[in-house]
Amino acid sequence: MSDPLSTTFAALADPTRRAILARLSLGETSVSELAEPFDISLPAVSRHLKVLEHAGLIARGREAQWRPCRIEPQALKSVDEWLEEYRRLWEQRLDRLEDYLRTLTDPPSAGPKSGGKKQEKKRGRKK
Amino acid sequence: MSDPLSTTFAALADPTRRAILARLSLGETSVSELAEPFDISLPAVSRHLKVLEHAGLIARGREAQWRPCRIEPQALKSVDEWLEEYRRLWEQRLDRLEDYLRTLTDPPSAGPKSGGKKQEKKRGRKK
Repeated sequence: MSDPLSTTFAALADPTRRAILARLSLGETSVSELAEPFDISLPAVSRHLKVLEHAGLIARGREAQWRPCRIEPQALKSVDEWLEEYRRLWEQRLDRLEDYLRTLTDPPSAGPKSGGKKQEKKRGRKK
Repeated sequence: MSDPLSTTFAALADPTRRAILARLSLGETSVSELAEPFDISLPAVSRHLKVLEHAGLIARGREAQWRPCRIEPQALKSVDEWLEEYRRLWEQRLDRLEDYLRTLTDPPSAGPKSGGKKQEKKRGRKK
């Protein structure tokens, strides 16, 4: 039912799963080694791994005895690409804040013409 | 219960909520205007807005009649900062892939000493 990006975001919406990814970013490891630092049961870790695997964020070896987990960081590129559009926005906000701070400290010598105040807008039109 | 980053990721794990953010990235708007392009009820849109507002991804005006929604892109910076660590990883992977492709096309003249093949590792040690 979920689209891939929603599945990725949902998988990341848990601190234990993000901690597992952080551990795996250091190198591949077995499930039991992975579970050690966490205060949760092995089945609980396995459930988290299934969510991460389903989202393509980790992959697991196919050996019966030792199924090492490794991170698949490429899956996070879709998140990065989605963010790109918004990165521009928060950078613009910072620029505007800087501009505003400059108007407070610089003398209004040449005076820019564009007054950006649009607070009153069309509020209450429905009445 | 949720930490802030988990709340943000959970809020983003829905295509309608991401579409709302995309619309708001063009400028602030009322809830009814916002609901128009979506094939869902106004109460459903309101529920999505609550989730986004709770995650700090949008803010809403306080006027009773017209409560404009606007995006708060700074909230996405935490996601960007979290990604930073992993960006390094997927770039390394791409570099390694490039190195590998080079070994396929370049003649092994001066022969680099570092053989990166560690496929056999310690698999099956438990037997």
